[in-house]
Amino acid sequence: MASPEKNPCLYLSGPGKAHVGECPRPIIEDGHDVIVRIAFVGVCGSDVSFWTKGGIGAKIDASEPLIMGHEASGTVHEIGSAVSSLKIGDKVAIEPGIPCRRCSSCKAGQYNLCSKMVFAANPPSSHGTLTKYFKMAEDFCYKLPNWLSLEEGVLVEPLAVAVHACRLADIRLGQDVIIFGSGTIGLLCAAVSKALGARQIISVDVNASRLEFARKFAATGTFQPEKNDTSEEIARKIKEAHKLEEGANIVVEATGVEVCIAAGINVLKRGGTFIQAGLGKPDVQIPIITLSEKELTMRGCFRYSAGDYELAMHLLDSKKVSVTDLISSVMDFEHTTDAWEKTRKGEGIKNLIRGPRD
Amino acid sequence: MASPEKNPCLYLSGPGKAHVGECPRPIIEDGHDVIVRIAFVGVCGSDVSFWTKGGIGAKIDASEPLIMGHEASGTVHEIGSAVSSLKIGDKVAIEPGIPCRRCSSCKAGQYNLCSKMVFAANPPSSHGTLTKYFKMAEDFCYKLPNWLSLEEGVLVEPLAVAVHACRLADIRLGQDVIIFGSGTIGLLCAAVSKALGARQIISVDVNASRLEFARKFAATGTFQPEKNDTSEEIARKIKEAHKLEEGANIVVEATGVEVCIAAGINVLKRGGTFIQAGLGKPDVQIPIITLSEKELTMRGCFRYSAGDYELAMHLLDSKKVSVTDLISSVMDFEHTTDAWEKTRKGEGIKNLIRGPRD
Amino acid sequence: MASPEKNPCLYLSGPGKAHVGECPRPIIEDGHDVIVRIAFVGVCGSDVSFWTKGGIGAKIDASEPLIMGHEASGTVHEIGSAVSSLKIGDKVAIEPGIPCRRCSSCKAGQYNLCSKMVFAANPPSSHGTLTKYFKMAEDFCYKLPNWLSLEEGVLVEPLAVAVHACRLADIRLGQDVIIFGSGTIGLLCAAVSKALGARQIISVDVNASRLEFARKFAATGTFQPEKNDTSEEIARKIKEAHKLEEGANIVVEATGVEVCIAAGINVLKRGGTFIQAGLGKPDVQIPIITLSEKELTMRGCFRYSAGDYELAMHLLDSKKVSVTDLISSVMDFEHTTDAWEKTRKGEGIKNLIRGPRD
Amino acid sequence: MASPEKNPCLYLSGPGKAHVGECPRPIIEDGHDVIVRIAFVGVCGSDVSFWTKGGIGAKIDASEPLIMGHEASGTVHEIGSAVSSLKIGDKVAIEPGIPCRRCSSCKAGQYNLCSKMVFAANPPSSHGTLTKYFKMAEDFCYKLPNWLSLEEGVLVEPLAVAVHACRLADIRLGQDVIIFGSGTIGLLCAAVSKALGARQIISVDVNASRLEFARKFAATGTFQPEKNDTSEEIARKIKEAHKLEEGANIVVEATGVEVCIAAGINVLKRGGTFIQAGLGKPDVQIPIITLSEKELTMRGCFRYSAGDYELAMHLLDSKKVSVTDLISSVMDFEHTTDAWEKTRKGEGIKNLIRGPRD
Repeated sequence: MASPEKNPCLYLSGPGKAHVGECPRPIIEDGHDVIVRIAFVGVCGSDVSFWTKGGIGAKIDASEPLIMGHEASGTVHEIGSAVSSLKIGDKVAIEPGIPCRRCSSCKAGQYNLCSKMVFAANPPSSHGTLTKYFKMAEDFCYKLPNWLSLEEGVLVEPLAVAVHACRLADIRLGQDVIIFGSGTIGLLCAAVSKALGARQIISVDVNASRLEFARKFAATGTFQPEKNDTSEEIARKIKEAHKLEEGANIVVEATGVEVCIAAGINVLKRGGTFIQAGLGKPDVQIPIITLSEKELTMRGCFRYSAGDYELAMHLLDSKKVSVTDLISSVMDFEHTTDAWEKTRKGEGIKNLIRGPRD
Repeated sequence: MASPEKNPCLYLSGPGKAHVGECPRPIIEDGHDVIVRIAFVGVCGSDVSFWTKGGIGAKIDASEPLIMGHEASGTVHEIGSAVSSLKIGDKVAIEPGIPCRRCSSCKAGQYNLCSKMVFAANPPSSHGTLTKYFKMAEDFCYKLPNWLSLEEGVLVEPLAVAVHACRLADIRLGQDVIIFGSGTIGLLCAAVSKALGARQIISVDVNASRLEFARKFAATGTFQPEKNDTSEEIARKIKEAHKLEEGANIVVEATGVEVCIAAGINVLKRGGTFIQAGLGKPDVQIPIITLSEKELTMRGCFRYSAGDYELAMHLLDSKKVSVTDLISSVMDFEHTTDAWEKTRKGEGIKNLIRGPRD
Repeated sequence: MASPEKNPCLYLSGPGKAHVGECPRPIIEDGHDVIVRIAFVGVCGSDVSFWTKGGIGAKIDASEPLIMGHEASGTVHEIGSAVSSLKIGDKVAIEPGIPCRRCSSCKAGQYNLCSKMVFAANPPSSHGTLTKYFKMAEDFCYKLPNWLSLEEGVLVEPLAVAVHACRLADIRLGQDVIIFGSGTIGLLCAAVSKALGARQIISVDVNASRLEFARKFAATGTFQPEKNDTSEEIARKIKEAHKLEEGANIVVEATGVEVCIAAGINVLKRGGTFIQAGLGKPDVQIPIITLSEKELTMRGCFRYSAGDYELAMHLLDSKKVSVTDLISSVMDFEHTTDAWEKTRKGEGIKNLIRGPRD
Repeated sequence: MASPEKNPCLYLSGPGKAHVGECPRPIIEDGHDVIVRIAFVGVCGSDVSFWTKGGIGAKIDASEPLIMGHEASGTVHEIGSAVSSLKIGDKVAIEPGIPCRRCSSCKAGQYNLCSKMVFAANPPSSHGTLTKYFKMAEDFCYKLPNWLSLEEGVLVEPLAVAVHACRLADIRLGQDVIIFGSGTIGLLCAAVSKALGARQIISVDVNASRLEFARKFAATGTFQPEKNDTSEEIARKIKEAHKLEEGANIVVEATGVEVCIAAGINVLKRGGTFIQAGLGKPDVQIPIITLSEKELTMRGCFRYSAGDYELAMHLLDSKKVSVTDLISSVMDFEHTTDAWEKTRKGEGIKNLIRGPRD
């Protein structure tokens, strides 16, 4: 069933070294396989880290160029014999990682912790979605509602990230939530918090226009720290500005910035929960006595797991969350590095790349 | 019902400034009140901080000397009219804090988070148990089994601390637990982990004789870090020595030392839980990316709450935990500062002070 | 501080035996006491059981007439010295039961399970709110927002019942919920399910006009069983009508009727949760093998507990739930039995009684 | 890789209709496949239902004889290319069902609820382990410790059933547990309760010799109901005999008998949990008002899921549970129906069948 067709793709071989190339077009091997014709690929902060530094933790080896891209939508091009939930032509959002399905993490409902996960655009050898045809397992392709565009379908991935973070936080009806960072993930965390019934949703960012957007999008209030504010000052000011005398129930930290992490711990009320959703420098200083005395829970957050994509789809389908306004630009495949540069410079919220034409 | 009797007590008015004095003998005001004749008071690390620095967070104001002591046992001397579970002469362990019973934390089962808690030996104004007669609410006095000594009764308090930490950790049958620190709390956490059915219980300490004790007491294995080991090295060596390739399920950190906190995060397996049970410096550096990528849960731990003393009593009563061997010395009330000094120097595990004779 | 004023009240001394009388006007004894001037009292199904049968489980002893009423609102008339959250003249909703605050259930966050609970209008000796002045603890009086009427304030009690049921059910964003019964509790469970983000909310009732109301009020769909439908038929028809092939995630049963209970078990998907919120006959037949093979969770539901009133207040305050349309009639105190009769006949949804004038 | 070898097996074609036959010897198709040479197969109550009634829910179709057996141990005979945790000759216990690994139940950690589960000896078409060679996925074969016999390995299956029931019950250190029924499952639930740290473990059975065995095996106390005891009487007598004034925390019902189910609900304390682990008649009468007023949780229990076999293996390996004394007899493959008859008559606890010799 090998194909003679070309499969164009976008390789990165190190910081600043991207090139359009070709890879073997994927073929159906398992009955549950689906081949997706990629429509759009989103640019995420991690792509910028690859583009500028060659990776986040693990780096690309120059001798093994990696196909980039992990936020993707497309149309079903071919299906395996056992596929029953999809048919050729269906528009889908792709969940870009396949776990082993056999280890104790997979079986226990935490497949994001599977150590054998094959995740898109992960060094050394797991290629991404910036290609024409991409093979996925049926159960990791989510059929889009008819009225949703393929452009919007790209946003299911970051929405699933936000869903995962908010579920880890266990946000409950009537709780007060503070979200540090108003990039794509922070904004979507605000929207998911709203769908979960949060009372106050306070977005915190250094950028006033992002806060303005957050307020229109989902936040009930905002806070813009001043340049030299300490974490204690940020916490105190947020509490005062938003009448949270005892502090907030939940903090979702989507910046990875040290002072925000400490401010998040300081702004929580006793018994509150802190979710680390952003990635920054590997080691940060935290107020551990405060964590102890308020008996806080601080949780790391890694990608998405069982049910997260399904819930993201429900939020879109029920129109509880709309991602339309997050799309800032769409570039052609040949201009992928321009889209990365745009994102690096902080231009726009979500920049998309069109899949290769041929 | 005022009493003419003297009520001797031990005041601290600042670092190094202790003196024996007198205070008003307590009287029954509420039907649920109980007056306890104090038998023994334990010395804890926090007492040493008061003795050497005048406090931990909040300090004693020199103008308002504070009666010290919060780990205590005694006999019931007088009871209020509504008391039904205790009678005069009963031996009891005292839970040394009374919450407001009315706030949302109290009602929700987390009275340790009550902001109106009156806790023994807490500045500015809440006096402790180093006195002859101490008033407590009936439901915070726990009747000791006949066969248990009043000396052992003092240890119910640190055992309740360990119970609280291990319940926050949600240690489950068959899980691997690593405990940093083999002082009283670390040792009792090991014992509670064993009662909860942990598989491996690895005690970590820099002191070889403490590890030897831990091994006899409850640990299934031990690890002694070398002086300049980094947190990564400590984590790697523990995994190798104890065949924990993927890491441990649970870490209970009972030292407060920065390198131990980081080592604890590094030694956990994906999805694991870290409990901060020790107190050290207020800010520490932690490997936050590791916390995120392994999706760890890190929880602060503050005193004890609903059900902890009851479970501590059950562990003693069922002989699942024995505290006898933890008692290192018993000093007379007049030599309280000697007992504090002993503890400051790291001599013994739990040093006790006899209640005032008259 | 005893008062010479009369305190009119409504006694029941057995089935059909009600009379207006007088009782001692309550006086402040504890600093946290509040005296409320009762404005309105709601009629609930349990009142009808008292009126017709003399009680539900425990019956009224003819020699000890009981003051009826437990759903109530009013204005603060007098406050104890320790009261800080309320002032004279505040409009409040009353949570009509005071737990002991000292037993293990109270401390563990489940005060509704307190065996020493003093609950309004509970035989033999705990009097209710159908009186002019009623004494309550400060923390069980909830200040109403200015814009909410005292009539609406009565509805906080049934709304707290619904909140408790839905929290026990652990309804999550995107789940499908089926609610048997469209009386006050069933309707409010639908509204709370909506606030919790349920996907489908299907109200089931034999009464078409109630279903019509439910649809306008909160339900996304309805189902009216036919007279002789078996529980299997009801379950099958609901699944077909609402495209729930695998069944629903949650059932809240608010009728107590045997065939509805069995239908609820049959309509759940594997792993689903069933909450018994209605009271009917004491013993019912259930399909236990179905419960086992689908590994269902079935939970009893008793009144309300920590946080339920607070959440009910938030739902009103945020206008996520409106109770205005549930109020069907308001009768004067002297016509209390007419209001009971109305409710017995199924007339209206919530019938109110005005507190005594003098 | 097809094999010319015969694969003897034991077919049932309807009530009382068993015969030894042959089936195709399984061949490795997937890299993760393992072929096990069956050593021993246990007889369970469900086998008796097949033998006497042709099935439990679904019945065997006479035209499609079914190979029986689902509790099995054996040695690894052949392995697929991807198998890494097992080698030829390893002794293993078999978990006899393979879920689809792709549905939402499988991904969410509840593969026992997978609707596409292929489970041994399940009509119409899923054959069992009473055969010489049986094919399984690597991750459902559990390597036995060297010191454990293959006979004992058969008992891992019922031990996993008990582990699953006790985990659903969420039995905690210091809780009181009542177990109705002292057959294999009831006895193993007592043993698992003990490993979980239960305080009292009361076994209830009508058979005095079984209770004697339970007491030696794991129970801390026993209760033998009299013939005509009502459920209320049984509950009252158990509470009195074992000083459980408020009732038990947990009931595990392992008989399926109606009066035991009702007694279990009656004997629980407020907030307690009831697990239905036994199967009896499809519909039973339960005291629903009692369930409501005590706010009980009642849960069905179906087979085993993620982590249950692993925990069962740990319990054996750590010698926290020993199954040796449960093995009552071992019959040759040719006398399978004798082993079923023995079990039908209630002779012995666990009767084993030796795998076919050739």
